Amino acid sequence: MDKHVVWHEQLVSRRERNVMNKHRSILVWFTGLSASGKSTIAHHLEKELFERGVRSYVLDGDNVRHGISNNLGFSREDRRENLRRIAEVSKLMVDSGVVVLSAFVSPYREDRSYVREIVGADDFVEVYVRCPVEVCEQRDPKGLYKKARAGVIKGYTGIDAPYEEPQSPDVVLDTMELDVEDAVRKVLEYLDSRKVILLM
Amino acid sequence: MDKHVVWHEQLVSRRERNVMNKHRSILVWFTGLSASGKSTIAHHLEKELFERGVRSYVLDGDNVRHGISNNLGFSREDRRENLRRIAEVSKLMVDSGVVVLSAFVSPYREDRSYVREIVGADDFVEVYVRCPVEVCEQRDPKGLYKKARAGVIKGYTGIDAPYEEPQSPDVVLDTMELDVEDAVRKVLEYLDSRKVILLM
Repeated sequence: MDKHVVWHEQLVSRRERNVMNKHRSILVWFTGLSASGKSTIAHHLEKELFERGVRSYVLDGDNVRHGISNNLGFSREDRRENLRRIAEVSKLMVDSGVVVLSAFVSPYREDRSYVREIVGADDFVEVYVRCPVEVCEQRDPKGLYKKARAGVIKGYTGIDAPYEEPQSPDVVLDTMELDVEDAVRKVLEYLDSRKVILLM
Repeated sequence: MDKHVVWHEQLVSRRERNVMNKHRSILVWFTGLSASGKSTIAHHLEKELFERGVRSYVLDGDNVRHGISNNLGFSREDRRENLRRIAEVSKLMVDSGVVVLSAFVSPYREDRSYVREIVGADDFVEVYVRCPVEVCEQRDPKGLYKKARAGVIKGYTGIDAPYEEPQSPDVVLDTMELDVEDAVRKVLEYLDSRKVILLM
């Protein structure tokens, strides 16, 4: 076999994968308060993309915090490491040809810039899922805002920890006004404008 | 939007992805000494799968140690954490519909069992890339065996750290005898027998 040994040569390029799939691969990063609707929109977008033959995959607290980041807590340092791991996983998945839909509060600008840097600006789309904290607090599907107000949870984004709004997001979704279908449509149209997918 | 809020509901199943792709997704784990040929075989298999319309992706030292595991060293503990992260990444990629080809020395049975457990036995194929250490040492493409012999590198598998052979690997590839094409063919036939892909 020695004559064939070529170390770590990638024989299939991302471009070839994108051509086979008939769509580009990219990371779509949903940021916003807890209960703003990030995960819901991401999952509905995944479904819509799937029906159009586009391979996409949602990363969110459910599959990340119970998996690759199950040995991390919620300190500032651990949150940064969590986002670093998500960025690295996303990079691999984007290289494999998948449109990655990541839904995480990711309250710090610095951290989101870090993700963008790891993945590369050309492969990163920032979607700001905007919703007033009062409305998120009313929704409170997991009862976490209530616990934060009661002081049971410390450092909860929007209550006693800051959320730094994106300064120039690629897409803004106001979930007080938009329903899920409209929000999904808005992201699809943006992806079409970026030539990631082709809307018919 | 509140009426639509369904938290963390997966709207596209792995099964649906596999149906769309016309192949199953699984983790193929290549284990063996450094320079046994793991990465080379994995990359050639990826190419062959691609040409058959099968979506696969190689994880190896190159993209993992410089990415998701770039903050880990080579202590026993760090090696275990490295494999845990690879297992978790593989699990996500398999769920996204990809055939993952992981090429890592992974010298300890305990660690390989751990990977199998995380990913699930049904989704795990163990391929033992077998080659005598003397032959690997002669190949020594990165000069690491030489450094290990000189004592510059400590704890190098096959020199001063053990390699625990798999007890019941799904596939064994003797790279002293097989050339790359034959090795790839052997794995393809195994994947066909497991109904991951369908050879024509």
